[in-house]
Amino acid sequence: MSRIKLTKNMYRIKLYFIVFMMLFNVVRSQDFVSDSSIINKIYTEALSNGDSYKNLRNLCKDIGHRLSGSKNAEKAVQWGKVVLQRYDLDSIWLQPIKVPHWERGIIERLDIVESKNNIFSTSCTALGGSIGTNGAVISGEIIEVNSWEEMNSLGEKNLKGKFVFYNRPMNPTFISTFMAYGRCVDQRHMGASQAAKFGAIGVIVRSMTLKMDKNPHTGSMQYNDSVNKIPAVAISTIDAHQLSNMLKKDSKIKARMKLSCKTLPDADSYNVIGEIKGTEYPNKVIVVGGHLDSWDIGEGAHDDGAGVVQSIEVLKLFKQLGIAPKHTIRCILFMNEENGNRGGESYAEYVRQKGEEHLMAIETDRGGFSPRGFSIDGSDAQIRVVQSYQSLFEPYNLHLFKKGYGGVDIGPLRDGSICLLGLVPDSQRYFDFHHAPTDVFENVNQRELELGSAALTSIIYLIDKYGFPDLETNQ
Amino acid sequence: MSRIKLTKNMYRIKLYFIVFMMLFNVVRSQDFVSDSSIINKIYTEALSNGDSYKNLRNLCKDIGHRLSGSKNAEKAVQWGKVVLQRYDLDSIWLQPIKVPHWERGIIERLDIVESKNNIFSTSCTALGGSIGTNGAVISGEIIEVNSWEEMNSLGEKNLKGKFVFYNRPMNPTFISTFMAYGRCVDQRHMGASQAAKFGAIGVIVRSMTLKMDKNPHTGSMQYNDSVNKIPAVAISTIDAHQLSNMLKKDSKIKARMKLSCKTLPDADSYNVIGEIKGTEYPNKVIVVGGHLDSWDIGEGAHDDGAGVVQSIEVLKLFKQLGIAPKHTIRCILFMNEENGNRGGESYAEYVRQKGEEHLMAIETDRGGFSPRGFSIDGSDAQIRVVQSYQSLFEPYNLHLFKKGYGGVDIGPLRDGSICLLGLVPDSQRYFDFHHAPTDVFENVNQRELELGSAALTSIIYLIDKYGFPDLETNQ
Repeated sequence: MSRIKLTKNMYRIKLYFIVFMMLFNVVRSQDFVSDSSIINKIYTEALSNGDSYKNLRNLCKDIGHRLSGSKNAEKAVQWGKVVLQRYDLDSIWLQPIKVPHWERGIIERLDIVESKNNIFSTSCTALGGSIGTNGAVISGEIIEVNSWEEMNSLGEKNLKGKFVFYNRPMNPTFISTFMAYGRCVDQRHMGASQAAKFGAIGVIVRSMTLKMDKNPHTGSMQYNDSVNKIPAVAISTIDAHQLSNMLKKDSKIKARMKLSCKTLPDADSYNVIGEIKGTEYPNKVIVVGGHLDSWDIGEGAHDDGAGVVQSIEVLKLFKQLGIAPKHTIRCILFMNEENGNRGGESYAEYVRQKGEEHLMAIETDRGGFSPRGFSIDGSDAQIRVVQSYQSLFEPYNLHLFKKGYGGVDIGPLRDGSICLLGLVPDSQRYFDFHHAPTDVFENVNQRELELGSAALTSIIYLIDKYGFPDLETNQ
Repeated sequence: MSRIKLTKNMYRIKLYFIVFMMLFNVVRSQDFVSDSSIINKIYTEALSNGDSYKNLRNLCKDIGHRLSGSKNAEKAVQWGKVVLQRYDLDSIWLQPIKVPHWERGIIERLDIVESKNNIFSTSCTALGGSIGTNGAVISGEIIEVNSWEEMNSLGEKNLKGKFVFYNRPMNPTFISTFMAYGRCVDQRHMGASQAAKFGAIGVIVRSMTLKMDKNPHTGSMQYNDSVNKIPAVAISTIDAHQLSNMLKKDSKIKARMKLSCKTLPDADSYNVIGEIKGTEYPNKVIVVGGHLDSWDIGEGAHDDGAGVVQSIEVLKLFKQLGIAPKHTIRCILFMNEENGNRGGESYAEYVRQKGEEHLMAIETDRGGFSPRGFSIDGSDAQIRVVQSYQSLFEPYNLHLFKKGYGGVDIGPLRDGSICLLGLVPDSQRYFDFHHAPTDVFENVNQRELELGSAALTSIIYLIDKYGFPDLETNQ
């Protein structure tokens, strides 16, 4: 039987099924029509009268980057509060938290010195949390490593007193760039301590991006307390490529590194919170949030200025359109997602202490790009409920409604009953800008940003309206 | 009955349907598995070893913009031929055509003069095809018009001897920006002749973009031979906004315009064509194409350098992966899409003269952005066949498989039997760059471009393999 004949039969069967479903759907058509109409209003308002883009411009241009513990982070807290105050919310407050306080300082220098003493100066960036070099220049040969196995087999004999250069690239064949990132970021995250086990004196990490360019990308790293702490920097993909080529010709290349970064005592900071009280279930909360802190490079426009202004916009759209939610809708601008997640953990702790009930939390922290759908971290029943809304989003080109990760900030809320969601935008360009000097306002497209606000508001509208009855006894 | 109970029942029914379809699918599973595996190879090759991005860099940076009839357009023809020659094709040839030859010249000036003689200088761009001002400066009051109805009611009394300023913006609430463009571009296209009917001396058109910025966007316009020809320019959205505000306060504002653009006699040019001969149906052709010409502003990177290098990449991927197509796969780099479509028309004429049979043609001319799917202009049976492949594209996030427009270049091939397709990328950013100085290589993302090449190659692979048996008797 040919494929095409089968295809024809399949279509006949599909047609019967569709007709059946249409008859069946008549019963619930009124809801569908009214929901479609509300969602259309949400999109229309977000695209024609939205505040998210101008709010993002203010955050990026008036404040700029805002690493936890920095003066800019504190300005951003005040900014968030002031912006929320514009939207006639029921309450706005700051949740005090303690955050790590790491500072880059003004010196970060990495010279690559060939055996004939020619110097190749790179533009490097210390990884967040790295120790500095205490005013000294540290120097040693460079050994390139492309896997943990390779490093283990090199061992102390080859690595002691040297710099380890982690050059494993992100795999371009994953369609989701987050998949490629997830399989690569271990080098950045634990590379220093793994190398220190073999007596290395520092590490140089290839930037976590698929783009070949000259921008070094920073990001968090962690020390294992059982081994010596050694400094860690990232270099751009072009520099990494060049260094690798140089090492093939000259195995005696040295690095000279000087870094002024340091960790200070924990600082005071805040999660910024605003909410609209629910009309039927004021004590049951739906959270929408992004993170207010950013790395101290660029302007934190996609990561996560976009999520911040989109989360604020959700409340604005509810108010603007006069939609009174049944549940309390709470927007949280989390502090310290980048290097500690103290905001997310402190908020979950606050919820537990107050005994608050949460129906759902949704995070937007994957860049202000064209939305594709939602990842759903919940029970099978919850996932089915969210998936049942997929057709309502078809006119807006949202098509991914899959089980998946919610986000770092809302992760600590997981308690076996709350449903966690993540907004999933197109991922292709995210790592071009992620933690890099290019993560600036100009690289965010207004419409892509606004479509994200509308998608968030629409899914929250639906979940607020219908809840998750499989898990609830009081509705 | 609550929505949720209905949803549950629907899921039960859906489950039965899915189980049934799975049993049913066993028969054709081998094809599905082998097709999935080929498509995976196509994507892997395009993303890890593709030439499209470097080909685009060469086209944009070594040649730059390339309006029909210009020296650059002729360079681009030679470039296209040389690039195709790298891929061991069965034949490569140039199809001679005659193209319109319009030149901007070096002078384009538009001063806005308030009644108190303050001058507001705008950056303007002549619309393609516009007459110039013959060395003179033409001057007159400006009347803003936001609809054809408004212009008709203003009439000759208010418009004679004046400039008409078309300021109807693109509607941001359409999700597809092409829908918004389609409902707005009439002002640019026929604004001059419509205004000339009422004795206007020139037109100023708001640029066709949703972005508020300082870039004027050019584009084609046409004169109606029955009325006087008057010059036409575009100004940026920011300038249009400002001019509109100025006119609200001062109705006596004048424009002073000087343009050196002119139309020369038609020039010689070429479509650039390369093909792989089919193993089973060498006389039946599948076309993939984009257009080689571009406006004379920017570098024609998205419009349509992207389509050109993606179309070339399709042939490269077939060769590289050793896929011998059943039908002849022909890549066409069309000349003169922007201001005449002589390339598309001449190719269709050539096909008719030779009596060649064409199975399918697919065009890529909507920018090198993340692909979303395909628009299908064919019979219901053809549309069903293309739609039957949708699940194969799910891992690559393609989800739009709808009836719709193929493209300008392939349009003249329509004969009631050929199936025309268009690659549909995400449209949100397209009009930020379209016909503007910002349509440069740097604004194309490598992965988004490559995903488009892979999507094109995959759908061509499937259509080549299975054909459209509903319409064919010889397969």
